Amino acid sequence: MTSAKLTVEDRLLALEDRQAIYQLVCGYGYSVDGCNAASVGNCYVEDGVYAVGDMPSWVGRDAIAAITRDAGHLKLVGAGCAHMSSLPFVVIDGDRAVATCHTMVPMHGENGFFIGRLSASRLELARQTDGGWKIVHRQNYMLNGSGEGPALLARLHETAKTS
Amino acid sequence: MTSAKLTVEDRLLALEDRQAIYQLVCGYGYSVDGCNAASVGNCYVEDGVYAVGDMPSWVGRDAIAAITRDAGHLKLVGAGCAHMSSLPFVVIDGDRAVATCHTMVPMHGENGFFIGRLSASRLELARQTDGGWKIVHRQNYMLNGSGEGPALLARLHETAKTS
Amino acid sequence: MTSAKLTVEDRLLALEDRQAIYQLVCGYGYSVDGCNAASVGNCYVEDGVYAVGDMPSWVGRDAIAAITRDAGHLKLVGAGCAHMSSLPFVVIDGDRAVATCHTMVPMHGENGFFIGRLSASRLELARQTDGGWKIVHRQNYMLNGSGEGPALLARLHETAKTS
Repeated sequence: MTSAKLTVEDRLLALEDRQAIYQLVCGYGYSVDGCNAASVGNCYVEDGVYAVGDMPSWVGRDAIAAITRDAGHLKLVGAGCAHMSSLPFVVIDGDRAVATCHTMVPMHGENGFFIGRLSASRLELARQTDGGWKIVHRQNYMLNGSGEGPALLARLHETAKTS
Repeated sequence: MTSAKLTVEDRLLALEDRQAIYQLVCGYGYSVDGCNAASVGNCYVEDGVYAVGDMPSWVGRDAIAAITRDAGHLKLVGAGCAHMSSLPFVVIDGDRAVATCHTMVPMHGENGFFIGRLSASRLELARQTDGGWKIVHRQNYMLNGSGEGPALLARLHETAKTS
Repeated sequence: MTSAKLTVEDRLLALEDRQAIYQLVCGYGYSVDGCNAASVGNCYVEDGVYAVGDMPSWVGRDAIAAITRDAGHLKLVGAGCAHMSSLPFVVIDGDRAVATCHTMVPMHGENGFFIGRLSASRLELARQTDGGWKIVHRQNYMLNGSGEGPALLARLHETAKTS
């Protein structure tokens, strides 16, 4: 939009930032389905929060990484499931960013595959000192009739600072 | 492919264009699920067209933005739904572009989630004077047995000019 | 991450590579649903392999392109289906790359849409002499209770060389 005023460095960084956030958002799902605890933990800052509307929040990287060892999660993985994220809408504001996406968890059961969960998701992200990005706070709401999911999606253009 | 002949400016612009089109394609879904009329309208040019094979077309930005206030749409959002787009295949040709993707609308009902709609989608896009991109014409066809959806997907490499 | 040490050329190429791989991964699905044999074939190198856990492998570009003329495939397309790929996690290492994603095939049947297949997918890719990327080997495993799919997803950070 305002690229005429930006330097080549600015423009490269903006492109790299969005690609890095794409990697982070989709990589979380593959990591959690693969029960790769280190990779799940690395998606979050040390004191990151993963808040899901209908569950207690996970607080801290270690608690979030431990999802990969949770009995309920292992049962889902054992039966067959995919924690899918859609392409995120990403708003970058300096060293902070917000990504908005849908998440869907198709699962395998006795009668084949079914959609176990469908959510709206908003991730607040922070640039790290090594240049990478991590999740500071992720909020998911199930899209099953509550107004919280649609309200969260409506804020797609808001940055972490304005929200 | 031919990057050896392109300037840094050309290459940055091509990268930015594709990222901007990614934002547009996924952002539409979050905006419509969030009933964010302004954001939905901003996806389209003033006289943009949203054509869906099994419904009357929406003509003009205002009509398309009004989907967010439509009784049928509000009922879907109230029950729980997600207008999901897959990662688009994007062909850019100067100030025009075409994006091809799948769209899927999982919905929530009495027996949990189900896939209400599954479509092939082709978006013809135009660069705006501020450098951003908007949808000029979007055609969706349900993938439920008609040959129109597969035929539309088969044209993924065609630009707006050649189509 | 280490962009401070990289030249503008290096950084542009890395960005272009990931976008090209995005095009390849999503473009395969639209091509196969559109029964566009040339486009399906062009996703693979001449001796490329498409290995699916519960089926015999397809070996060679011609065999893979011929999926678009397969009676079983045409029946699916005729009924309505979408070969959807999620946003891939991409690790590039010189002229080789690995992309990890989910694939899902919603299909249309007598009772509406259902998820016919859900898989973990790992694509080993090679840079071509014209600068583009093609698939050398793709491995899919159904996510229906076997441990192979989760094990494949857990390797998302591995390159083709380290795997």
